[in-house]
Amino acid sequence: MTALRFEILAKDGAARSGLIEMKRGTVPTPAFMPVGTAATVKAMLPESVAETGAGIVLGNTYHLMLRPGAERIARLGGLHRFMNWPWPILTDSGGFQVMSLSSLREIGEEGVRFRSHIDGSEHFLSPERAMEIQRLLGSDIRMVLDECAPYPSTQAAIETSLALSMRWARRSKAAFGEQEDHACFGIVQGGIYPHLRRRSAEELVSIGFDGYAVGGLAVGEGQAAMFDTLDATLSHLPHDRPRYLMGVGKPDDIVGAALRGIDMFDCVLPTRSGRNGQAFTWKGPLNLRNARHADDDSPLDGACSCPACKSYSRAYLHHVVKAGEIVASMLLTWHNLTFFQDLMRTFREAVTNRMAAPFAARFLADYRASEHANGDG
Amino acid sequence: MTALRFEILAKDGAARSGLIEMKRGTVPTPAFMPVGTAATVKAMLPESVAETGAGIVLGNTYHLMLRPGAERIARLGGLHRFMNWPWPILTDSGGFQVMSLSSLREIGEEGVRFRSHIDGSEHFLSPERAMEIQRLLGSDIRMVLDECAPYPSTQAAIETSLALSMRWARRSKAAFGEQEDHACFGIVQGGIYPHLRRRSAEELVSIGFDGYAVGGLAVGEGQAAMFDTLDATLSHLPHDRPRYLMGVGKPDDIVGAALRGIDMFDCVLPTRSGRNGQAFTWKGPLNLRNARHADDDSPLDGACSCPACKSYSRAYLHHVVKAGEIVASMLLTWHNLTFFQDLMRTFREAVTNRMAAPFAARFLADYRASEHANGDG
Repeated sequence: MTALRFEILAKDGAARSGLIEMKRGTVPTPAFMPVGTAATVKAMLPESVAETGAGIVLGNTYHLMLRPGAERIARLGGLHRFMNWPWPILTDSGGFQVMSLSSLREIGEEGVRFRSHIDGSEHFLSPERAMEIQRLLGSDIRMVLDECAPYPSTQAAIETSLALSMRWARRSKAAFGEQEDHACFGIVQGGIYPHLRRRSAEELVSIGFDGYAVGGLAVGEGQAAMFDTLDATLSHLPHDRPRYLMGVGKPDDIVGAALRGIDMFDCVLPTRSGRNGQAFTWKGPLNLRNARHADDDSPLDGACSCPACKSYSRAYLHHVVKAGEIVASMLLTWHNLTFFQDLMRTFREAVTNRMAAPFAARFLADYRASEHANGDG
Repeated sequence: MTALRFEILAKDGAARSGLIEMKRGTVPTPAFMPVGTAATVKAMLPESVAETGAGIVLGNTYHLMLRPGAERIARLGGLHRFMNWPWPILTDSGGFQVMSLSSLREIGEEGVRFRSHIDGSEHFLSPERAMEIQRLLGSDIRMVLDECAPYPSTQAAIETSLALSMRWARRSKAAFGEQEDHACFGIVQGGIYPHLRRRSAEELVSIGFDGYAVGGLAVGEGQAAMFDTLDATLSHLPHDRPRYLMGVGKPDDIVGAALRGIDMFDCVLPTRSGRNGQAFTWKGPLNLRNARHADDDSPLDGACSCPACKSYSRAYLHHVVKAGEIVASMLLTWHNLTFFQDLMRTFREAVTNRMAAPFAARFLADYRASEHANGDG
């Protein structure tokens, strides 16, 4: 009995195209999940996020537990109602942000004690509390608490950290229990060490999860090491469960990872870049702040269906970026999320047509060549 | 021959309800014009501005001449196309912002020399240049360049300033010429001195404009002095031309001025307040930052049709305001613009039903009583 039905519709090499069916909606995979950090996908209304093609968003346990608080969101009817997003939500466990944002961390067997980056207040996160917070939020897919080891770390340090993460995974699953309407994912750790990744994958599979995430990547190891690690990991995960590469990523990372069999992605890149004046296109990223756009009456991407491309010129986008106008963040975020969803849809079609590898090669050639030509990635 | 047809549909005392018909659209009056300072109504997409009920927006000549530049906007097809607002636009002359924002101003008979508040570059604005910029922008209603005297000023200072403004009004009208598709409004000045207001009104009428604005109010004189000045001014303006009270204002200012016969308003209040966490309601303004909203599951205004009221709780709005999320600016701006348009629509209906004065009295009683009860205006 699982709350999440995963159907693979087509395969091409290691790549797969499928559907994740949940109570609140069905998500075609490979899927990109926009990040809705603090109960909002920044600079977007939820209906606009859905218009881009996104069927699931990610919520951050760390941010929500600190503000407005998990118990408060539960009293207000749960995260879906609170943020007006009735479709599936995946929440992380808070572990990653505890490591990257909070201060005065103290990690022990029981959990991690830390101070809020907002007001310095002290908090404690254990596997049990992480699962309780996600239950209070009411998210559809919940992640186990893990320790994200820094990169680079020695093999010994990774091994120690991994062992803790696996004990926490077991406690997280026990705290999650058996549920009909919610899913729980394990997270493979192990740095860039193939045998540790394998050990982690096998331990998680023996616990048994609704899906399996790959964590601890895109932390500075570089694309080649990331892809090698994926190759060493994915063969030890069950083929009939969704695989989620956490925090990835750049369009070329996503295409390479999807080609290797990843089904789910999340990243702040399209939203954060949108607020910084950067737009993703099939010909590489563009920096709208660049003066060469000031008199350019052409659209950002003539083939794109988003409002930024349909109704505005590059000159207008340049102007509002330079002037620091909120509408710049709104339009460029909308465009970037549309681009990421279009990329996923096109990749899924390529898998269906057994053209995943040629599609990836052509995509990378176009995307990287023009990145240099534009000179403003 | 005028580019603007003004039809009065109903009268109640001095108040009127009518229609301003222009090539790009028909605007019911009394009308509130959202301010689209730098080619964007801040935190809104234009189609959302239209959804609130707004039929015309204001553009700021000062901001647009400095960035991105009037000649550039003309090359890009004009302001309507640039900012994706196909309906009527009124532009001011730039005079007010030169006085309030720029540095090193030097006013002479010919015009005003000033430095940009953005980059310190030197610019010159004359009546002729102000009209040329508005022609380049392609706005539907253009304002004469005037000098906005500070408040308080001596009668002698106001008199000198007014004389210059009237000479500039004549030059502005000459530069505007006769046009079929664009309208030009004069601006009555004269401080709080009834005889100077009368002199100004009569001089402008003798020049002849498509509409008449009242300038130099809401600059610190207080509501009573503003209303007295309006009473002393409006009787000297032709009844069959629209009257525009510039930069006003607060809902109670608007109701009082509309009751006295004003047809058009503009103000940054709904948009700026929205970005500061303040929401306007029929029961007075609310500060969403206030902690008492943190657990309030009720909507901002159950009767309002805007997205903020239809899909979110006060608790959510409080959360996103506190977290500094862009969506807070988006939702509260949308709500405030909806409130201002609803207020204008309700006032127009009251005029039609010859209930303008009772409507105003009830509105003010509700609006002001609760302002105190809420304690967070």
